[in-house]
Amino acid sequence: GVLGSGDFARSLAVRLVCSGFRVVVGSRNPKRKASLFPAAAEVTFQAEAAKKADVIFVAIFREHYSTLCDLADVLVGKILVDVSNNTEINHHKESNAEYLASLFPACAVVKAFNVVSAWTLQSGARDGNKQVLICSNNQEAKRTVAEIAQVMGFTPVDMGCMSSACEIENIPLRLLPAWKIPIFLALGLFLCFFTYNLIRQVIHPYIREQKNKLYKIPIEVVNTTLPCVSYVMLSLVYLPGVLAACSQLYYGTKYRRFPDWLDQWLQHRKQIGLLSFFCAALHAVYSLCLPLRRSHRYLLIETAVKQAVEKKMTIWVEEEVWRMEIYISVGIIALGLLSLLAITSLPSIANSLNWREFSFIQ
Amino acid sequence: GVLGSGDFARSLAVRLVCSGFRVVVGSRNPKRKASLFPAAAEVTFQAEAAKKADVIFVAIFREHYSTLCDLADVLVGKILVDVSNNTEINHHKESNAEYLASLFPACAVVKAFNVVSAWTLQSGARDGNKQVLICSNNQEAKRTVAEIAQVMGFTPVDMGCMSSACEIENIPLRLLPAWKIPIFLALGLFLCFFTYNLIRQVIHPYIREQKNKLYKIPIEVVNTTLPCVSYVMLSLVYLPGVLAACSQLYYGTKYRRFPDWLDQWLQHRKQIGLLSFFCAALHAVYSLCLPLRRSHRYLLIETAVKQAVEKKMTIWVEEEVWRMEIYISVGIIALGLLSLLAITSLPSIANSLNWREFSFIQ
Amino acid sequence: GVLGSGDFARSLAVRLVCSGFRVVVGSRNPKRKASLFPAAAEVTFQAEAAKKADVIFVAIFREHYSTLCDLADVLVGKILVDVSNNTEINHHKESNAEYLASLFPACAVVKAFNVVSAWTLQSGARDGNKQVLICSNNQEAKRTVAEIAQVMGFTPVDMGCMSSACEIENIPLRLLPAWKIPIFLALGLFLCFFTYNLIRQVIHPYIREQKNKLYKIPIEVVNTTLPCVSYVMLSLVYLPGVLAACSQLYYGTKYRRFPDWLDQWLQHRKQIGLLSFFCAALHAVYSLCLPLRRSHRYLLIETAVKQAVEKKMTIWVEEEVWRMEIYISVGIIALGLLSLLAITSLPSIANSLNWREFSFIQ
Repeated sequence: GVLGSGDFARSLAVRLVCSGFRVVVGSRNPKRKASLFPAAAEVTFQAEAAKKADVIFVAIFREHYSTLCDLADVLVGKILVDVSNNTEINHHKESNAEYLASLFPACAVVKAFNVVSAWTLQSGARDGNKQVLICSNNQEAKRTVAEIAQVMGFTPVDMGCMSSACEIENIPLRLLPAWKIPIFLALGLFLCFFTYNLIRQVIHPYIREQKNKLYKIPIEVVNTTLPCVSYVMLSLVYLPGVLAACSQLYYGTKYRRFPDWLDQWLQHRKQIGLLSFFCAALHAVYSLCLPLRRSHRYLLIETAVKQAVEKKMTIWVEEEVWRMEIYISVGIIALGLLSLLAITSLPSIANSLNWREFSFIQ
Repeated sequence: GVLGSGDFARSLAVRLVCSGFRVVVGSRNPKRKASLFPAAAEVTFQAEAAKKADVIFVAIFREHYSTLCDLADVLVGKILVDVSNNTEINHHKESNAEYLASLFPACAVVKAFNVVSAWTLQSGARDGNKQVLICSNNQEAKRTVAEIAQVMGFTPVDMGCMSSACEIENIPLRLLPAWKIPIFLALGLFLCFFTYNLIRQVIHPYIREQKNKLYKIPIEVVNTTLPCVSYVMLSLVYLPGVLAACSQLYYGTKYRRFPDWLDQWLQHRKQIGLLSFFCAALHAVYSLCLPLRRSHRYLLIETAVKQAVEKKMTIWVEEEVWRMEIYISVGIIALGLLSLLAITSLPSIANSLNWREFSFIQ
Repeated sequence: GVLGSGDFARSLAVRLVCSGFRVVVGSRNPKRKASLFPAAAEVTFQAEAAKKADVIFVAIFREHYSTLCDLADVLVGKILVDVSNNTEINHHKESNAEYLASLFPACAVVKAFNVVSAWTLQSGARDGNKQVLICSNNQEAKRTVAEIAQVMGFTPVDMGCMSSACEIENIPLRLLPAWKIPIFLALGLFLCFFTYNLIRQVIHPYIREQKNKLYKIPIEVVNTTLPCVSYVMLSLVYLPGVLAACSQLYYGTKYRRFPDWLDQWLQHRKQIGLLSFFCAALHAVYSLCLPLRRSHRYLLIETAVKQAVEKKMTIWVEEEVWRMEIYISVGIIALGLLSLLAITSLPSIANSLNWREFSFIQ
């Protein structure tokens, strides 16, 4: 059974019918709404639908939950599935599912399907996340809903008892929260170093020697900026660990909470590290592209022509040769090690390591 | 207990014995077959084996299930594990496990282990997929079989009730079905663009100016072909979404099914996108290899020598310099963004994103 | 309830209090130890704590389990969670959890949380592995502990019945066991080939022609060494399969165990293959860096100057051009194929392939 006639209710009905379930839809105005639902779904009054169905999806807004109280008698012993989402994180004190459970103590309330979009429901789980997070205090009801999710083509994930409902309801509202600070940090650092390098490599030679080096902006200036950003970010990954250790030494205990800013910082280390790796990888690609440039070619030919005209046969500077060889080989090794760190941060790799192995690699 | 004496039955017996279980094998001709099984397994008549065992693996072909009907009395209340596979997808109307359950209504039938090969069973789960998909209508029986799988070194995955059996039986017959169309598409596009570029870069200059440019085929022609394929594939990823939106606008509803070809197309977007990324990445590697070639070196030296002999000191063309700088830096940024898309399509990353984050990144 | 006052007990109490549980700590000397625990946790005598709590975490060493025997009466029917670890793999015959269960047959013993470090417990699951492996013979107790783990922010993983306890206790002691032999193998091979290439490319020309080519060591010598290591490692991946097939043909049976050395070898194939890919990828990066080097530039200009002075206009050697073009394009294709193998060895990709697809790709 599906109560409601909104977008989500309709998609849910479409999907349930496609997966071979018998669906009855409860609406306050069944005649007008019947045309919105697939023909195979029976559309009737709410009380009628509640009577016929064993598992009832409550696809209406939290604000209207209380309107269902008239159906309390019919709903006794049935499974109510709360699929609702909020518009803000931690909008209400108690989660929607817990509120529903408090209204209908004689029902088995299950939180599920809220992490799935109406579009995914309707078109079937195709790409991206196929998981449906489920929680309930009633084991039997949870299992029933998990099996319905399975048949619909999703992967049910047991999230334990009802107290997880709040967390599950917050999930669809998240938008990469752990990435915001690290990304703004990286952008800020990039801007600072880019300005410095622009002045040094383009503006200064122009003012002093009237040389037009504007062509250096898109590749060379960016390429000298990236490793600076990468270095600073990498040091920001390891700094908070040192600060945390100092704070523990200072207070003489491991069991004192860190100040909030340090705690936040410790939590963002992984993202800062991945951005550092991203900058380092981009620096490698930019560097490898240097000899592809027309300007590189022109400068090379110009030097050769100048040497030939002046009949200077040898230009080998041992020191410069060595500097470049060492610079490149150290760079490759550093990138190789950073790649290893980045690979072990993939969830499926990290889950196959124990903490001793993980900290060994780190 | 294991009923049967084929390859799978023997591997199953070997593995169960190795994992510390007491194994009894039921065969129609126990004397002749005993030598095929490990010494620790007791080989006896089918009825005898069925009597002694609590969990019975039915390792015989679907066609011979009916020969077990004589054992129906002995099997009452026991757990039957259906490990069979078909030779064709959806060969029979009802799955083997459901057919077995209909023959023995007094048994708890569990579908399991069919996704594991005889070789993996025998040698232990080493690499690749360690998952054993399990489904049954009997929760208790499902749990027992899941624990056996665990002890044997596999990862049991609960696939819900018996109606999933058909899906589970089809899995081992799959051979990358979602990749077939995209791969042929990519190969077709590659062939077309390769022919065009071959004519343009090699055959045309040969006919018009008698210049031998055959050396360009392995790298330069391939390298100009790859980005064309990549572009067309990328546009084919985003085109069906637009067509779907148009179709929804035209029919004025979101709840009408798309035509089959559009549906197929929408389902293959991920694979088309990954192939597009693969071509783009190959293009990047080919481009980076260009200055490594001997021909590049020869052309460079030839130009330098010509300039030196003619005493032309300056060859700087500002426009060409800028074109190349911008081309390369836009290319790097595009590849970086495509990499991000490719990484988020890894199952373990996709499962940690909600659909809002996933569609934000897309 | 938490029994014990060590590092792990304190971290556990901190985490449980943070997650909203009411915590009672049992200590032999509650007055002295109370200051070590968070204020919200009640610290009392062991018998008192055991009486008050339903779920009791036993955070004491295996050697002291027997001191709890006085509490046997109070503990009847309660859930005991064994969180202990050993200092050596397979230190005792029976696992700690099984030993605890044998001491308290009237309790539901659950093995859990031993794979989590005290630090992770205290600071919350942040990065790396969030899984808590749980096993028990009592389904109800296992479920209760799984839900506690969930609320604490970990991902409970059901590992079946108590016989898995031994395996779970060995996990935190592991340190990449499957990688040791392959890594030493790779280092050994690298050393051999490096010495050979050093003699051939640097020492030999120095002795014969007094040419100083020391600058070649960091990049060129390493770059000719890496593909040799990669080739030999790749052949070591496929060789044991051939040997295994030969052994099966020789003995005329698939069901004979392989000799131990061959079995070990077969089990390390994945790691050897990944190291082979790593060497191949490094070789690609080193090769791409070649034209970035100052020495490459000097040699190029020198050649051009020599040619210009001698007025030799053409230096094109068709054979060398072709050799390089084919060498590079074959190298790119080989690296592309190896990348595919490496990607399918990611756990989350491998789990989405059936064995037919996996062996097709291999």
